[in-house]
Amino acid sequence: MSLAAVFEATAQRAREASRALARASTGQKNRALEVMAARLQSARPALKTANQDDLAAAQARGLEPALVDRLRLDDAALDRMIEGLLQISALPDPVGSIRDLAYHPSGIQVGRMRVPLGVVGIIYESRPNVTVDAAALCFKAGNACVLRGGSEANASNRALALLLGEALEATGLPAAAITLIETTDRAMVDHMVAAEGLLDVLIPRGGKGLIERISKAARIPVLKHLDGNCHLYIDAGADHAMAEALVMNSKTHRYGVCNALETLLIHEAEADTLLPRLAALLAAKDVVLRGCPKTCARVPEAEGATEADWYEEYLGPLLAVRVVPSLDEAMAHIARYGSAHTDVIVTQDYARAQRFLAEVDSASVMVNASTRFADGFEFGLGAEIGISTDKLHARGPVGLEGLTTEKYIVYGSGQVRA
Amino acid sequence: MSLAAVFEATAQRAREASRALARASTGQKNRALEVMAARLQSARPALKTANQDDLAAAQARGLEPALVDRLRLDDAALDRMIEGLLQISALPDPVGSIRDLAYHPSGIQVGRMRVPLGVVGIIYESRPNVTVDAAALCFKAGNACVLRGGSEANASNRALALLLGEALEATGLPAAAITLIETTDRAMVDHMVAAEGLLDVLIPRGGKGLIERISKAARIPVLKHLDGNCHLYIDAGADHAMAEALVMNSKTHRYGVCNALETLLIHEAEADTLLPRLAALLAAKDVVLRGCPKTCARVPEAEGATEADWYEEYLGPLLAVRVVPSLDEAMAHIARYGSAHTDVIVTQDYARAQRFLAEVDSASVMVNASTRFADGFEFGLGAEIGISTDKLHARGPVGLEGLTTEKYIVYGSGQVRA
Repeated sequence: MSLAAVFEATAQRAREASRALARASTGQKNRALEVMAARLQSARPALKTANQDDLAAAQARGLEPALVDRLRLDDAALDRMIEGLLQISALPDPVGSIRDLAYHPSGIQVGRMRVPLGVVGIIYESRPNVTVDAAALCFKAGNACVLRGGSEANASNRALALLLGEALEATGLPAAAITLIETTDRAMVDHMVAAEGLLDVLIPRGGKGLIERISKAARIPVLKHLDGNCHLYIDAGADHAMAEALVMNSKTHRYGVCNALETLLIHEAEADTLLPRLAALLAAKDVVLRGCPKTCARVPEAEGATEADWYEEYLGPLLAVRVVPSLDEAMAHIARYGSAHTDVIVTQDYARAQRFLAEVDSASVMVNASTRFADGFEFGLGAEIGISTDKLHARGPVGLEGLTTEKYIVYGSGQVRA
Repeated sequence: MSLAAVFEATAQRAREASRALARASTGQKNRALEVMAARLQSARPALKTANQDDLAAAQARGLEPALVDRLRLDDAALDRMIEGLLQISALPDPVGSIRDLAYHPSGIQVGRMRVPLGVVGIIYESRPNVTVDAAALCFKAGNACVLRGGSEANASNRALALLLGEALEATGLPAAAITLIETTDRAMVDHMVAAEGLLDVLIPRGGKGLIERISKAARIPVLKHLDGNCHLYIDAGADHAMAEALVMNSKTHRYGVCNALETLLIHEAEADTLLPRLAALLAAKDVVLRGCPKTCARVPEAEGATEADWYEEYLGPLLAVRVVPSLDEAMAHIARYGSAHTDVIVTQDYARAQRFLAEVDSASVMVNASTRFADGFEFGLGAEIGISTDKLHARGPVGLEGLTTEKYIVYGSGQVRA
């Protein structure tokens, strides 16, 4: 059988399973998630053995230690997966909720019912925990999933997927609802990105390279974000202590995350007093500043920023800094250079806060809060499958609701159209 | 300047205009729509003159009379456009509404604000009324639009777009918010479908050929539907008078529309009595039946259906008919052959009504109502830009809400992430 035929048969089984899942009750889904957690708990030794195979192969191939670390399934990683399964089990089920059900002049009642998307494809890199985390979210939202992990985690992913499938069958659901593509043939990804009618949406999880590659090739919808070039604008009259706390938390809480601060914009009315103070605080954390000429005039140790710096997502201890003459200039900078991920204004002014919220066209727009809050848990979604910077469907942190869609339902009593 | 550069400059002007539109108040947008209506009213003679050029050219080129008719801007067509502008002006503005604003454990308040998509590309065929109808809907939702009409309606579209632009400027808004691409060079469509970062979404309006072509080539999201292969299933125990009325309205109210009935499924318990009666009613309207063997056994004048008939969207006086042994078989038929547009169950049974609503995976799923109700006006959207059978973003009739997106907003008071 050709690889294309293997993929199609696999995806068809997942689609059939998705129909059983769409009918499954909330109780049945929650029980399955609890059984998954229990099986992960009791299978710790077997999972670690499988993981050892991946780790040994990675080390033999001379993989970087940081990448080997990402592969590791230790007790802490297993604890987080088990905890995640139980958390997702406890989340409200979005499927079947109906909104805006109302009578219309014809006499029909029209509403919108939330339903699963169908089959979700997940393409991810080395971390084997994605196998469990992503499958559990798709499953709770009533979707089957087709998982394609990195070849370096193949033994771990197989062991995890086997457990999940057993848990599904133990609760009367088809194992194919969580399908791992076991072949490490890269051509399988080509079939996934072109799977019109087989997969309803693709979610790539991993580095920017992977996500760009998938998005470029995709013939089916992709939920993704590429860049998190997040801005914080300190407005004229902002509270300095608040501004300092927000800059430090946004920039230095964690460097390698998509909601970390990358460009600081500051109104020139505050620059003389606040910029040197911020520079000292950041220098104490070894953060290097790349500034506009007005920044460099006030902070001698700052490096000069080039045009490329305004576009950059550093993901490290670097911060671009620009002094701006007005809110309008700050918003124009964000519109031009930003990645529409997360942008913050620090202000005490009511009208400018409202303008920033209304006019900045990003997935998360904040007043007086750290960029680091752009996160599914912090936003109350319970868990997230990722963050979308696309405008259609789901935007910002994507949780269970983003893994569903709505259909119109009509309750009639024999009405015909006049 | 190359065509690509012309397109890019045009789209950039539309994007700049979209930012002004996103800031425009509801009152300002409504006034602009009223000025558009008034200008259309007073420009009737000029519009008809421009339209005469298109009609004359079409007749000279030997275009089919039906196609020439679609081009015609007579008083009735102008009345409908003017009425449409005033209706859209009266619709509630979706932009700026905030839902689910709530405090979270960190102390931040998180909500979701509805905002425009940005710039919408519309590619359409001969009907010049689309220029006004689509532009008005995009505009009320706060979007700029880039319109590409059919070359055969070029003079009419230019005259209409000029009026709309003048109305925008008269109300202090940029004329580029409604941009008509005037060149009839077909390569312009190639630039539109690949306009990543320039257009946020494409909406093709026209025949299936156009929509397939655009979807295949598109590198940006497309809101569309291809087929309306709508089903009506008559359940065991259904009310016969209701079933007859619904079948007749769904099939014969209008033939050429996407929400017309194309396949009738009937439970075998009702087939003996109801099928001959339905066949007589349909024959009186010259509707030809293509049936399964069980149908042909009960309706001798029915033609035998082939496998292709179950997939077919006839858009004419033809109806495929299949006798099924159960609700499950009816739903399996719809899942296999349907186009996920609109499907109806006629039933008096509570449990089977609920199962059909929950399990049939189509944009509109109905109990005891005509398929013809799948329509933006009938569903209370006020007006529609089209119907989507895709699962992501907007599904079913797409009105103002489908032309917007949501972003997360955060009101903080200095919170940092722990």
